[in-house]
Amino acid sequence: MESFLEYINSPADLKKLPEKELPRLCEELREKIIDECAEHPGHFGAALGVVELTVALHYVFDAPRDNLVWDVGHQAYAHKILTGRRAAFHTNRQYGGLSGFPRRDESPYDSFGVGHSSTSISAALGMAVAAKLAGEDDRLSVAIIGDGAMTGGLAFEGLNNAGASNANLLVILNDNNMAIDPNVGGMNEYLLDIATSRTYNKVKDEVWRLLGKFNRVGPRARAFIQNIDNSIKSLVMKQGNLFEALGTRYFGPVDGHDVIHLVKVLRDLKAIRGPKLLHCLTVKGRGFKQAEIDQTFWHAPGKFNKETGEILREERPAPPRYQDVFGHTLLELARANPKILGVTPAMPTGCSLNIMMKEMPERCFDVGIAEQHAVTFSAGLAAAGYIPFCNIYSSFMQRAYDQIIHDAALQRLPVVFCLDRGGLVGPDGPTHHGAFDLAYLRVVPNMTVAAPLDESELRNMMYTAQLDNQGPFSIRYPRDNGVAIDWQTPCRALAIGKGRCLVEGRDIAILSIGTIGNQAREAIRQLPPGSVALYDARFLKPLDEELLHDLFARFRVIVTLEEGAIVGGLGSAVAEFAADNGYLSRVVRLGIPDRFIEHGAREQLLAECGLDAPSILLRLQELQSTR
Amino acid sequence: MESFLEYINSPADLKKLPEKELPRLCEELREKIIDECAEHPGHFGAALGVVELTVALHYVFDAPRDNLVWDVGHQAYAHKILTGRRAAFHTNRQYGGLSGFPRRDESPYDSFGVGHSSTSISAALGMAVAAKLAGEDDRLSVAIIGDGAMTGGLAFEGLNNAGASNANLLVILNDNNMAIDPNVGGMNEYLLDIATSRTYNKVKDEVWRLLGKFNRVGPRARAFIQNIDNSIKSLVMKQGNLFEALGTRYFGPVDGHDVIHLVKVLRDLKAIRGPKLLHCLTVKGRGFKQAEIDQTFWHAPGKFNKETGEILREERPAPPRYQDVFGHTLLELARANPKILGVTPAMPTGCSLNIMMKEMPERCFDVGIAEQHAVTFSAGLAAAGYIPFCNIYSSFMQRAYDQIIHDAALQRLPVVFCLDRGGLVGPDGPTHHGAFDLAYLRVVPNMTVAAPLDESELRNMMYTAQLDNQGPFSIRYPRDNGVAIDWQTPCRALAIGKGRCLVEGRDIAILSIGTIGNQAREAIRQLPPGSVALYDARFLKPLDEELLHDLFARFRVIVTLEEGAIVGGLGSAVAEFAADNGYLSRVVRLGIPDRFIEHGAREQLLAECGLDAPSILLRLQELQSTR
Repeated sequence: MESFLEYINSPADLKKLPEKELPRLCEELREKIIDECAEHPGHFGAALGVVELTVALHYVFDAPRDNLVWDVGHQAYAHKILTGRRAAFHTNRQYGGLSGFPRRDESPYDSFGVGHSSTSISAALGMAVAAKLAGEDDRLSVAIIGDGAMTGGLAFEGLNNAGASNANLLVILNDNNMAIDPNVGGMNEYLLDIATSRTYNKVKDEVWRLLGKFNRVGPRARAFIQNIDNSIKSLVMKQGNLFEALGTRYFGPVDGHDVIHLVKVLRDLKAIRGPKLLHCLTVKGRGFKQAEIDQTFWHAPGKFNKETGEILREERPAPPRYQDVFGHTLLELARANPKILGVTPAMPTGCSLNIMMKEMPERCFDVGIAEQHAVTFSAGLAAAGYIPFCNIYSSFMQRAYDQIIHDAALQRLPVVFCLDRGGLVGPDGPTHHGAFDLAYLRVVPNMTVAAPLDESELRNMMYTAQLDNQGPFSIRYPRDNGVAIDWQTPCRALAIGKGRCLVEGRDIAILSIGTIGNQAREAIRQLPPGSVALYDARFLKPLDEELLHDLFARFRVIVTLEEGAIVGGLGSAVAEFAADNGYLSRVVRLGIPDRFIEHGAREQLLAECGLDAPSILLRLQELQSTR
Repeated sequence: MESFLEYINSPADLKKLPEKELPRLCEELREKIIDECAEHPGHFGAALGVVELTVALHYVFDAPRDNLVWDVGHQAYAHKILTGRRAAFHTNRQYGGLSGFPRRDESPYDSFGVGHSSTSISAALGMAVAAKLAGEDDRLSVAIIGDGAMTGGLAFEGLNNAGASNANLLVILNDNNMAIDPNVGGMNEYLLDIATSRTYNKVKDEVWRLLGKFNRVGPRARAFIQNIDNSIKSLVMKQGNLFEALGTRYFGPVDGHDVIHLVKVLRDLKAIRGPKLLHCLTVKGRGFKQAEIDQTFWHAPGKFNKETGEILREERPAPPRYQDVFGHTLLELARANPKILGVTPAMPTGCSLNIMMKEMPERCFDVGIAEQHAVTFSAGLAAAGYIPFCNIYSSFMQRAYDQIIHDAALQRLPVVFCLDRGGLVGPDGPTHHGAFDLAYLRVVPNMTVAAPLDESELRNMMYTAQLDNQGPFSIRYPRDNGVAIDWQTPCRALAIGKGRCLVEGRDIAILSIGTIGNQAREAIRQLPPGSVALYDARFLKPLDEELLHDLFARFRVIVTLEEGAIVGGLGSAVAEFAADNGYLSRVVRLGIPDRFIEHGAREQLLAECGLDAPSILLRLQELQSTR
């Protein structure tokens, strides 16, 4: 059978298809996504869930004149394939290839760059207001947002503001009842209620029960009863609707996999100006059986066999991921210390809090996609005497910066912040790299800022943090495997603010923080023994001033090494220290350069930044030859 | 007449009063607040609005066992007076005196420190969950939050999470229809609807209209109709309620100034476990006529005559506040450039955007207390070709850090961030000092980070920013008066990333950024002419490397000066530069020390930080004598 898809190079081509062929196109698109993701790992489940929605949107609306803003954006694969990127799609998320998210610099059809959750309503509202100001009120701005992302405070702020505007905004609520893990919270319950007409049915039943009685009154009043029933229905579905309450017209729910019906509904909505919301019910992983069943696993499964659904893994014994070390260690600590609690904003599987959750569900809290709340909620727990381990990815923690400063640090509350995905994350790219946390946390008074060299150190730091109790304590580690097969070492307390020597040397001292020190260790192995020393700072704050005095006294060159922004981090702290103390040794700062780093494999990106062992070796050799 | 208030030194004393005397106590409290605020400026309107609520809360609940969390906290004056701080209250907001906000280290009755908006639900939920875990489910945690603060995304995140919990949380929605300026947004409209029973009345009218017809059907059906009416009422008030939709039981609205009724309602609520919300209608400024009429002005009016309501001003000609320079300049620029828009999260009066708003209401956007949305919305406007000036106080901008990085900087969108209240703000204290912005913005790639020396420079920077169009551009200035009476100089374009010499000199070079440079200028005047040079960096990012090379070549001592955290700011940038280039001149860094600075007058705090002219002079003299 001939393929439609291979003739579609833009939405204009799509619009030439007769409406009745859209379901077939959807099947082709779905197959294409399955084919590509089986070979080139990506965000699978979300992409399959919005195939029909994407086709309908591009069929009815006029992108890029109409703005489509995809919240988070990992569901935008069908959008990319339909907007001129079909042939390039096999490069998705690879170094130099397509981004896994919409990006303004990749295509005019990507009206707003995304990656973090809950930005779409605000951005699309901005565009809708701009269109209105420009007298182009017929231009529609569409935010396509999942029910998970809808729990983020930013989405609510956007909705609240949209409700008071008269901008031509359409919010498509893509309700699949999931974030990466199952969605949680009051809003989720509420959406389930609408989707299943729970309240409405309850009320309708009540009315019909009464109507039963009323039948005895006489047939003349039937029309009247129908009136009352309609009043109630409109009340439940409209006036009583949460979105209507916030000033946005609510439509739905509709089946998000019925492309013909979606086209009809979107056409109808086109005629309605002002802020409006269409509630679409979809299934994450739709059309790939395994993915529909285990939606969390199939969010981003890696390579798989598309016929059997079998996951293709490399079968060599590997050290555990830092995520698992975190998860197992937290459970271990929590067994010994009843004050320990676990908090995650919608990432129990991603950060491995699910390990503790399984054994101690009552002591773990998935608060939904809500980083700000996760931190202030943790501060509340700490104020009441508990020790919450609040695990948030480094780049998402940017969203809770004020809460760290204002709610935790200012009050010296002992919240343990575990910053997963610190450093370069790889294929998710610039929105997800944890580049800035060392720098932005170092600025905050009362903070302890730590990063482990390896699995044992991660365990020791977690152990130390729950003993410390003097204020907020942050521990950051990468999205990576560790370095030791045998990682379950006994936990021991570390002296806070004290570094250590890993390799003795004469000429040059490297002071590193975090797992990137292992790259330095590897580089040093290639050099004459005893020439380059390696120190592990362990703590960025407080800084080990005793160690630094010693280093500046003994070494003419001190190299700082961190997998974080070169501006403001460890190198900056050492430069400040040298300035404050009038030291004259040369300070060479290695870190992530002052620009946004693109996506690619972690190793490629480390090399690009000069942070892998070969680059470090080269740099050391240069320094040795020029001294 | 004898005073009750003077015998009340704790809530225990309050509980001894017979219920019927509570209204009189409220009057005494109100008078006390008026007396104190007339002499010692403070947050007046909000404090008067919650007198009855505060008395009722302490009368019914058992603080500090029950946790009271005051959102923002500037309304907690009555709470402070009733909890042992009556005698000390005249020191409110003064150096060494009581804080203008609840603080954990000030009193055990202040269960959570506050200052920024919308934190209370999350913090109180943390405490409620902690109480449940500890088996003390009878302990109630209460968040008292205004309708303005309710628009903040963090509050929604907290509500959403609370709705899925079974924690013993009471949210008191203090609905006065105001933030500092009138409240805006869909939620505000919704609360007005509930408060005035708009929807309910509409539906009830409809039912009675139908009932009129129905009367002809026969009297037997009256009870049935009553049933339907009740169904509808409960539907409108409960099922259809926004808070109920999110899983929190809704009660109200009640009159927040009827203390006797409030006591009854709170007693009833005590018996109801789980998350619940009480909607209280109050009037900001209640009981002081002028304050009830002009609520925005009387939010924090300064000293006034308590008999006449006349404001007491010092009547000498003063340079304008930087806020007004911003406001007038923006209007001037907007007249010439139709692409310029203004955005503020609920601070049109505070930041003086109201000046442009008055002439160009359609080009200005008050988005409510929603800093995150303000930034992403601005990014959306910029993506559509406009140049939004997004004005947010420095410490509140911490809340939009991710949006700056992820939505503006990563996409190089030309949003102009105007950071008002940069540096030490004075009596509002540590929650409000703009201490960290220079450091946290310097970390962000693609940002231009500027701070003006004076009014003319502020105008020039604003002018330059709207010409630049290369990416996000931040301009920070203090909550302070400027230095020139005659400030309306013509705007001119500045070279981005270029500093300038203000005072020539031989021995020492000061490199300052922002208005603090004026303190250095004053200090230098006390020294022999030509000894100390003063340079104005103007831009922290990009750094003027040409200038720095010149300074390091010519001066043996370089003093950096900034009204921002000593960690990570200008001094840090210069230390990094010195390290990277192997310069050996001494770098002396002056800035806000690495701790939270308390409240007090701006001059007192500058002196405490060693940043006023006399301290700088002393430091320069030391440096001159030791060279």
